[in-house]
Parts: sequence; C-alpha cells; structure tokens
Amino acid sequence: MPEFFNVRSPSQAFDDLRPHIFAISERETIPTTSALGRVIADQIRSPEDLPSFPKSSMDGFSVRARDTFGASETLPAMMEVVADIPTGAESDVELSVGEAAVAYTGGMLAGNADAVVMIERTQPADDTSIEILRPVAPGENVVNEGEDVRAGDLLFSPSHAIRPQDIGGLLALGITEIEVLRRPRVAIVSTGDELVPPDVSPPPGKIRDINTYTVAARVAQCGAEPVVIGLAPDEYEPQLQAARRGIQSADALVFSAGSSLSTRDMTADVFNQLGNPGVLLHGISIKPGKPTIVAVADGKPLFGLPGNPVSALVVFDLLVAPTIRLLSGASSPPTTNTVEAILTADIPSESGREDYVPVTLSKSDGQARATPVFGKSNLIYTLVNSHGLIQVPADSGGLYAGERVSVNLY
Amino acid sequence: MPEFFNVRSPSQAFDDLRPHIFAISERETIPTTSALGRVIADQIRSPEDLPSFPKSSMDGFSVRARDTFGASETLPAMMEVVADIPTGAESDVELSVGEAAVAYTGGMLAGNADAVVMIERTQPADDTSIEILRPVAPGENVVNEGEDVRAGDLLFSPSHAIRPQDIGGLLALGITEIEVLRRPRVAIVSTGDELVPPDVSPPPGKIRDINTYTVAARVAQCGAEPVVIGLAPDEYEPQLQAARRGIQSADALVFSAGSSLSTRDMTADVFNQLGNPGVLLHGISIKPGKPTIVAVADGKPLFGLPGNPVSALVVFDLLVAPTIRLLSGASSPPTTNTVEAILTADIPSESGREDYVPVTLSKSDGQARATPVFGKSNLIYTLVNSHGLIQVPADSGGLYAGERVSVNLY
Repeated sequence: MPEFFNVRSPSQAFDDLRPHIFAISERETIPTTSALGRVIADQIRSPEDLPSFPKSSMDGFSVRARDTFGASETLPAMMEVVADIPTGAESDVELSVGEAAVAYTGGMLAGNADAVVMIERTQPADDTSIEILRPVAPGENVVNEGEDVRAGDLLFSPSHAIRPQDIGGLLALGITEIEVLRRPRVAIVSTGDELVPPDVSPPPGKIRDINTYTVAARVAQCGAEPVVIGLAPDEYEPQLQAARRGIQSADALVFSAGSSLSTRDMTADVFNQLGNPGVLLHGISIKPGKPTIVAVADGKPLFGLPGNPVSALVVFDLLVAPTIRLLSGASSPPTTNTVEAILTADIPSESGREDYVPVTLSKSDGQARATPVFGKSNLIYTLVNSHGLIQVPADSGGLYAGERVSVNLY
Repeated sequence: MPEFFNVRSPSQAFDDLRPHIFAISERETIPTTSALGRVIADQIRSPEDLPSFPKSSMDGFSVRARDTFGASETLPAMMEVVADIPTGAESDVELSVGEAAVAYTGGMLAGNADAVVMIERTQPADDTSIEILRPVAPGENVVNEGEDVRAGDLLFSPSHAIRPQDIGGLLALGITEIEVLRRPRVAIVSTGDELVPPDVSPPPGKIRDINTYTVAARVAQCGAEPVVIGLAPDEYEPQLQAARRGIQSADALVFSAGSSLSTRDMTADVFNQLGNPGVLLHGISIKPGKPTIVAVADGKPLFGLPGNPVSALVVFDLLVAPTIRLLSGASSPPTTNTVEAILTADIPSESGREDYVPVTLSKSDGQARATPVFGKSNLIYTLVNSHGLIQVPADSGGLYAGERVSVNLY
C-alpha cells in the first residue's frame, strides 16, 4: 500500500480531483418563486423595459421642468393643479404652460411632464394652485422608462445562484418560470460490521451508525440532495453492490469507510472496480482525516471518509463540499462563516501537516475568544461541544495563546 | 405626524421592539434526522454511556498493560496471540499473563485487557506470537466506556439550534425523535393600488408585485415559514382585513407598505387597530429605509417596510431577521457572512444617519475590492447587480477610497 504514504495536502488533493468534475448538465423548469439557491442554466435577457413607464420617485407634483426655471422662495412659480394621478392609475392628462398634476411615489406623471417637484418644495397658493419654491431639472425625481433594465439587457449569466433579490428581479419582468440545473445528488454508504441503524439498540461490540446522517445533513446544507444507501458490512461484495447502487442513483458517492487498515484497503479496491481512473489518492496530510481516499469512476467523484466523526466532518468540508459546488454549476464563491477570535491556549502541531482543531467561542471584555477542545477525534461530542474549527497551517509548528485566529463556524 | 421626525437608529429601534418579543412556545416532535436547524425545546440528557463498551482506537493487539512494562526494541515482550476479535463482534476472551488478542479500530478488547498496542509497535515472532517493542500505559489507545458522554450527562440545553454533528450525537445515543419549537411563521402583505401579481401583465400605471416574494425568500433563509397573504389596495378596510388574516395565521407580520406619505399613514393606522401597544416608531435614521414602521399587536411584531426593494432588504436584515431569531428561540448568535475588502471609491454620507450602500466585489492583485453601486434604491437591479452591502456608520461623514470595509454578503 505504498500510495498511502505518498500523502498530498488537502488542496493538492482537490487539485488532483478537480479536472475530473463537471457541472451537472440536466435541467429542470421550476417556478421562480421556488428558485432560491438554484443555479441558472441559460443566460436570461429582459423581455421588456423596467419600469415600463416613467414613474415619480417622490410625493409632489409632476410638471414640465422648464416651467419651474427661475423659481425661488422669494419669487415662487405659481402653478395650476389640473389633475391628481393616483398611484396605479393611467394618466390621461397633458399639461399646458403653468400647469401641474399631483404625483405619488411610484405613480405616473402627467403625459408631457418631465420632472416631479417634491411636496416639501411647494406651498399651497389657493384651492387649485401651488407655489413652487425651487426649480427642478428635466428628469428630476423621475425613474425613467427602462432605467432599471431595458428590453434585451442581460439579466443573469448561466451558473448564477439565485438570491432573494434575483427572484424579485425576475418576477418584476414577468419571468415566473426559469430553467435551472438539477441539484447534485450525493449517495452515502456507511460501512462496518460494528454498525447498526440508529433506531436499533446495539448488542455488545456494536454501535449505532451516525455518519450517514451527519454527512446527509451537511450534503443538504450544501444545497445537494443526500441519497442514503444504508449500511454495508466489511465484506467486499456487499460493499461493491452498495457502491454500485450509490453511483447509479447519484452524482457522487461518499463512503464512511472505517479507519482500520483492512477496511481502508477494501474501500480502495471497491472504488477501483467502479470505473476509471479509480483511486487518485489514498491519504492526505491532515490531522484528523489522514486515511481519506479520493477516487473517480467514469466522471463521478468518490470519497472514502474516515469513520470517526471529527475526521469525517473536516474532510467533508475540505473536499466534498467544494466538489458539490463544482457539480452544482454555481459560479459564485462558496460562502464561509468565520469569526475572528483570540486563541486562549497553545496548539502544538507537526510541521508539514494541516491540523484542524475544534474550538469553543466565548466573549470577554468585548473580545471573542477561541478555546481549543482537545478531545479525541473519534468522539462525536467533541464536535457537539464546540462551535467551529481552526486550521493550523502546514508550514507552522503550532499556534500560540494570544494569537488572532479565524474560526470556521459549523 | 410628529413621530416620523423623532427618528431612532436601527439598533435603538430594535431595542424598543425587543422587550415585546418572546420565543414561540408551541412544540412539535420530529425525527432527529429531519431536525437540521430546528431549536431544541427541552434540555436533553444522555440515556446511556457512549461508548457502551471500551473500544480500541487503533489496529493492533489488546493486552494487559502491565505485561508490556519494560518492553523495548532490544528486549521485546513476547506475547501469545490467543484470539482475534473482529470489529462488531462481542469478546468472550479473557487474557492470561503474556497473552494478547488482535484488536481493530472501533472493536472490543479482550475481556480483561486494559490497553492496545499499535500494530506498528509490534513484530511477528512466529505463527501465534508477537514481539511488543514498547510498553503501553493502562488505557492507552482505548476509548473508555462513557468517555464520550455518560448516562445522565446534559447533552443539549433548550434553545440550541441543531447542526449536522448534533444529529449524529443524538442518534449515537438512540435518540431518534426530539421535541423542537415550532418554526416562526411570518405573514407578508404587499399594499398598493399600483400592484398586480407577477404573472399578470401590468396595464399602464401598474407594476408587478415583487416584495412579497423577495421578503418570502429572506424569511425562508432565516429558517422561518413565509405566509403569503397577497395584495391589498391603498384602502383602509382591505388593508385591515389583510393584516388581521396575517396575524391570525402567523407570529409576525410584514407590510410592504409603499413609500408615499399617505400609504405610510394608512399602515400606521392599520397597525394601531390590531392590538396593543400599536405603533412603537415611525421612521428610522437610515438611508435607504427611513420610512419604516415598527409596531406590536398583543405580542406580535409588525413591520411596515418601505416599498422600494433596496430599502425593504436593508430594513429586513436590520429588524425583521433578528426578530425572527428571537421568535425562533435559538440562543446561538446569528450567522453573518462577511468579506473584508478595499473600497474603490469615496462614499459621501450625512453624519447622524446610517447609510447602507450596495457594492460589487472583484479581486485584483489578490485583494478583494468593493465598488459602490450608486443606483437608486427603488431599482431592483441595483440589488441584483451587487454582491453585498456596506454600512457607513452614523458617526462618520462617509468612507474613503482605499479604506478597508466589511461587506455583508447577501
């Protein structure tokens, strides 16, 4: 098993994998109102001008701007108010010289008006007239036809992931359905003779399977669809069958593969059976998470995650999460949720290996503080009782109490 | 309408509102596997020890530690291998002096073994014997019974929001159902005579409603359930009826209320009819978003958001999102997604008012740069064509090109 000792860093491992991963090409048409987080398949151009008519952006009076030129507090321009155009109503008024129409925010102007005087810049003169105290320029306090977007404008490029305001932007133009890429599906297999499903009381020597469900929850958080294949014992044929079911029903496969040497070898053998090029690497220079396997079977990425929960989560975030992003076709950078904090204790580390250490966060004197949790990485409550992870870079011999660190929140 | 000019800052506004908001008390029992993001209702204690038996954390040999004392490369301890205890199997072996049993990561030890020697610290002697090259201490390479958690330990306090590893931690102990707080429901009403539903082609003077759907998407992003009530015209009775339907079916109400003076007044009147204490404040010292109304009706928070989309989003994030968090009962801090960047242009601002300016992000020379988008806040594509918002603090006269700023990503 010489390749196990030829270890790569997590980012090198991802570089090895990246050329084999392609965005999902299948598409589906969905209502725009349900498209949050989905990835746009084709470019979208505007079918019309937005707004479709010039709108007032203030409460006041629509006017012909030239009628206000020279107006001042001492010499106001007197205007006759000939109409009131409510918001939402069509205007059928044309102004003559010295005439104005009441305008509302979002409402139409009079037909030949080209500006709006804010109500605060006017005062009533008599029942039907106002005095304008300052001139307005043409276009002032008006949102012009097509000022937001014009018919034919590029609205969205392919690969854009939809945010709340994008839903609004599409609906504003009447685009109530869009074509998006199918969400990636990730199959999950947990292997090990010691595992029973979580609703079974384990007999002596056995434990409940948890990685299936922590991995499924992370897959869902990444915007993909988890496909739970179930448990497989430490035997080659059942594992191969489970893996085949996984890649038939999904775009990627995660094996929570146990950490003993024999089970790691079996996972590598299974992955090599599934397609080409097979296992890319076996082991990465990281703690915890070293016994990780990365493979590709005919375009589908396969991951053998270490069985212990801390390692599985660390490796998921470094390799599986960015893979899901590539599969999803989303072009935007991944969102990271980090907090800057002061480290409260030294963290020793070996140079040449990235370490990931769970920390708890607390606040004192208005300053966030990160305290390392040096629990064993095979204890799930090490993760439960912490708020995030900090990375000790490979080129450092450790971190010191008092250093400023960046905590990746779960 | 004097209260409109007695403006509060966004954080003062939230301070005014906070004493009126209580976490939802209704509970529901759901499968643990579906609990991601949900808020735990009661404290949860462990029903059992985890692990339930001492486990090996290495591949190697379980031994009685005292049998290895004094072992070295030059004077190895010879041990008879009397059993092989596969992972998942119950051990029925007791070791005598000088005996060892093959142990696997995650597997049981021999009955009276108290340590595991890593396979790398042994060498085969003959077919049934090994040489141990280093001593082990009692407990070495063993995860003890109850080392992760003990029966009766507090696992989770009420108000904890479930993360992927928490699902694992619960399932590891056989807790397959949990009691959680009901998700907050937020009713949404868009008002305005100018609005038509997005699937209707608007006649002249009218526009498609978009705020209902951008707000609904943000509500969903915050982990709450949007309840779309629909459109109401600029008339008191229909708005009151829509608002009543909203607070009957939800825990909070958002009115996307238009920005003209008359519609703001109507929203305030409607809110004052719904319950006590009614309108808390009308207007906040922020741009965009000044014409915001905050009210409470018999324990239910009510928000009148400005009709224009940029303002609505800014105010949602400052007031509605933290309100949803309080309603949800979650104790953990809100997650924020920010990027540090260098500002590429000056942003003038008035002191005494918080400004929020959309920016686009780009990278040059390895440095993130934020470029202000000075679009009008009533253009939805100002938001669509930007990546996040920066805040210009109230006590500053603006920000300068070259300054380091923190961008809140959408």
